[in-house]
Amino acid sequence: MGDDSMAQQNGKWILTARPQGTLKGNELEWKEEPAPDIAQNQVRVRVLYLSLDPTNRIWMNAMDSYLPAIPLGEVMRGGALGVVEESRHSGFVAGDLVQGLLGWQRYWTGDGGAINKLPRLPIPLTGYFGLLGHIGLTAYFGLVDVGKPQAGETLVVSAAAGAVGSLAGQIGKILGLRVVGIAGGPDKCRYITQELGFDAAIDYKNEPLYPALRRACPNGIDIHFENVGGTILETVLALINLKARVVLCGMISQYNNAAPTPGPATLGLLVAKRARMEGFIVTDYREHFAEAVGILLGWHQAGKLKYRVDVVEGLENAPTALGRLFAGTNNGKLLVKVSDS
Amino acid sequence: MGDDSMAQQNGKWILTARPQGTLKGNELEWKEEPAPDIAQNQVRVRVLYLSLDPTNRIWMNAMDSYLPAIPLGEVMRGGALGVVEESRHSGFVAGDLVQGLLGWQRYWTGDGGAINKLPRLPIPLTGYFGLLGHIGLTAYFGLVDVGKPQAGETLVVSAAAGAVGSLAGQIGKILGLRVVGIAGGPDKCRYITQELGFDAAIDYKNEPLYPALRRACPNGIDIHFENVGGTILETVLALINLKARVVLCGMISQYNNAAPTPGPATLGLLVAKRARMEGFIVTDYREHFAEAVGILLGWHQAGKLKYRVDVVEGLENAPTALGRLFAGTNNGKLLVKVSDS
Repeated sequence: MGDDSMAQQNGKWILTARPQGTLKGNELEWKEEPAPDIAQNQVRVRVLYLSLDPTNRIWMNAMDSYLPAIPLGEVMRGGALGVVEESRHSGFVAGDLVQGLLGWQRYWTGDGGAINKLPRLPIPLTGYFGLLGHIGLTAYFGLVDVGKPQAGETLVVSAAAGAVGSLAGQIGKILGLRVVGIAGGPDKCRYITQELGFDAAIDYKNEPLYPALRRACPNGIDIHFENVGGTILETVLALINLKARVVLCGMISQYNNAAPTPGPATLGLLVAKRARMEGFIVTDYREHFAEAVGILLGWHQAGKLKYRVDVVEGLENAPTALGRLFAGTNNGKLLVKVSDS
Repeated sequence: MGDDSMAQQNGKWILTARPQGTLKGNELEWKEEPAPDIAQNQVRVRVLYLSLDPTNRIWMNAMDSYLPAIPLGEVMRGGALGVVEESRHSGFVAGDLVQGLLGWQRYWTGDGGAINKLPRLPIPLTGYFGLLGHIGLTAYFGLVDVGKPQAGETLVVSAAAGAVGSLAGQIGKILGLRVVGIAGGPDKCRYITQELGFDAAIDYKNEPLYPALRRACPNGIDIHFENVGGTILETVLALINLKARVVLCGMISQYNNAAPTPGPATLGLLVAKRARMEGFIVTDYREHFAEAVGILLGWHQAGKLKYRVDVVEGLENAPTALGRLFAGTNNGKLLVKVSDS
């Protein structure tokens, strides 16, 4: 039970303004106040790591997406990993490792039904984000269930050095595909071919995409794992094969746009090529998570699936760090370390 | 066997120039010459009805689509129904009704393997096009196999008074869907609601599409059967439900464009809504054609599935008639009557 004399001081980022276009840094305000006492069925969680993801930017908009827009005046929404400090819920005891939308704050207090207990696995805590959490699950279900890969096919991955893209490409290799990654800059291209084993990399910032893709995909493109949208999607569509699958994981190039931008001029090729373009959200696969986590961990332990995390120290740096996702300056899954485990 | 003294005079339209944008009428030239004698395994067919379809326009372009571009100097490609006049192929005898890419000509001569024998069914010959041929099969497989309808869902059909759209909408009603048609002009809208039983019609030429669609689809859109593309597709996407299916049957609004035009700015909603957009070509379902023809004919005989044909007399009028498809001035499946049956 709680010890009132020790009431925890909470610090949190509040969404105070809707962003217009690129984040300006004035959308969030820091606020400190004591964490509330916990009621029956509630749990208090100390946040260890906060995940920064492109979807954070979508949630800041006024329009509902697959989740409602974050109301102004509320804590900024974010997925996080934490440790239970105090529990009045039968499913949790102090010391449990939990995951959920704990938000951009030091302490989360709420109903135990809103969070999930995690097993302690033989991997660092940051690996829960970089490999086993929604990042790895998104790569896995997107490629396997939406992409329906067949050995020998050609897979193209955009944002290929990114958290999801780098895993999607490696899973493609494990499943016997020819894997071509599109990434920005020579370092990222070297990383995906030399360290991750992609068959080819295209540096879209330094070479014209269409001829490079044509060269790298002599048999055309069977599956495209799309994280970017815009010109990249348009160009890839121009090279799809019959019955191609375009896995729409995200369109980060579009999220900062204040106004909608046109879609790909090549969309009509979906008809001629009898191709499929499909969006998905990893939470739809919740009942298969445990099985997929086991597969991902097994591949990792066998040395076939590598991941990188880019850890920013301190919750106070979260707003600035979020901007790095859109500038593409993060190296691997971007996390904020909020407190020591 | 052929009677050389009676050599048939063939008349045909030759593709002599690639169209740029809207058809100008100077792309095809009329040519007359005797039909060739038939060799072993060949058949000579007298064309009865020629089908005019949006895809004819695509085939005239220099770029290959799901079929190669028509070479300049060759007979204009077209699907047609004809009667065998002379056969040196074991699969055909004079009098057989056949279907195939017979082209824009009075007589087709070629290998019997390139055409299909049709059964004589209790329906006028024009019904083979308007209901039972690729038009009806496209509506059937597009809606049933790609759209995967569930009773109670909402279906939107564009070009809803057109040959394919009008059947897709009626099949939707038979399968228990709420069906909303988008068509141009009050006559077409009246036709689909009053004669075909659609639940609602939107006259996109006379009312703003977005609010009209919102009103007609109070529960959102689960399936969109797309024949048009462009602004219509963009607007429909803005209203799709979770797990919606966009059946890409065609994009007639785009076929006359000399240069590629941008795709829908709302494409990103496919991600948020976990929706699927998929192209298809009816010929992929060849092995199931006979079964589907039986189903379509049964629905028609039960009074649940109506069709209209718009028959232009005389092969000489085919080029002008093709332009009517893009102007939207045809009423039902557009055919050219080439000779008497």
